[in-house]
Amino acid sequence: MHISELADSVGVPLATVKFYLREGLLPKGTKVSATRAEYDDGHAERLRLIGALASVQGLPLARMREILGVVDRWDDYGVVDAVGAAVAALPPYAPEAATEAAIETSGREYPEDRAFPNARAAVAALDLAFDPGYPATRQLEDAIRSVQRAGLVWSPEVAASYGDALAGLTAAELAPMRDMSERQSIEYAVLGTALYEPVILAIRRLLHRDLAERLG
Amino acid sequence: MHISELADSVGVPLATVKFYLREGLLPKGTKVSATRAEYDDGHAERLRLIGALASVQGLPLARMREILGVVDRWDDYGVVDAVGAAVAALPPYAPEAATEAAIETSGREYPEDRAFPNARAAVAALDLAFDPGYPATRQLEDAIRSVQRAGLVWSPEVAASYGDALAGLTAAELAPMRDMSERQSIEYAVLGTALYEPVILAIRRLLHRDLAERLG
Repeated sequence: MHISELADSVGVPLATVKFYLREGLLPKGTKVSATRAEYDDGHAERLRLIGALASVQGLPLARMREILGVVDRWDDYGVVDAVGAAVAALPPYAPEAATEAAIETSGREYPEDRAFPNARAAVAALDLAFDPGYPATRQLEDAIRSVQRAGLVWSPEVAASYGDALAGLTAAELAPMRDMSERQSIEYAVLGTALYEPVILAIRRLLHRDLAERLG
Repeated sequence: MHISELADSVGVPLATVKFYLREGLLPKGTKVSATRAEYDDGHAERLRLIGALASVQGLPLARMREILGVVDRWDDYGVVDAVGAAVAALPPYAPEAATEAAIETSGREYPEDRAFPNARAAVAALDLAFDPGYPATRQLEDAIRSVQRAGLVWSPEVAASYGDALAGLTAAELAPMRDMSERQSIEYAVLGTALYEPVILAIRRLLHRDLAERLG
């Protein structure tokens, strides 16, 4: 199909498709004449993935490129590590303020058994394996430190209560992956991680509002 | 106390305290001589709140000022509306890409009974009151549209399953507010909304990883 048909079929503006081509996010079509290139269903599928990633709030283009690279080379990683690497490129990114604290307790400065002490305790309470190299481990450490600095309640038991609430949910979220190809399941995992997060946070805020009104 | 004692007592660098003073986020101390001002426990408390807000990822200074303004004038709002206004100033903010879609279905262009159709259906499935003016309603609409555009599963039943998972959690989160003064509970609601969000998202990612490893 022609580039304009490609754009129409996915519902992305033509100028945006050209931008993704220039940026190398979307592979070039097959030249069929000096002025015309042909695009196929593979291009449409990639364009749909790019469009979905483009709707992830706070995802810079460089990180999108990183995710697409992992999806393309998933075979070099294996499914679990590919998902890990792709999800690691999603926001949130370690904020400036938290960086010092994170470095303080990173594996580079401390022996591994002392890295991320708060995340370690939380992960133990959640009955999960502790993996200091997995990016969500650092995210959890940073998040707990912010909670503590603000003087809000924190304990491994709080982590366990969040885990209990989320356990059934996360299992349901992953269930569709059983019927997917490996590549599909990686794309699903990245998009699902990123795009259901704002849904969860908005619903939590609406539940808070409802509770506050009934209490108030 | 002197400004350096104030900084030490809260654990904030002196230069940062001076920055908050210049920006008007922290009220000036009481002049006791030409070169010296005295700060009290109220300043320390405000500095702790500012420090906690400063650790919220993606919160611009202008929004922090807005939140502090709501906290200071909570009496003009009442507790529920003050919490709503303060939480509304937290990220996420409507992204560029979603703005058109949001305007399309906003109350300004459509009669109110057609605004935010996806959020309306979700909120009905959650058995909550629909309030198109509450910012989390628009957040939910934008979030659902992104999920749908990416071709991920969505239905009001999915919303209900998220609601079921979060219901006990949100009730537990709000429980400490019963023993707080009104002003304290507003501060707690804003900080708790913002600072437990990254905890929830990190734990969700860790649970996903654990499940993926067991499936893989």
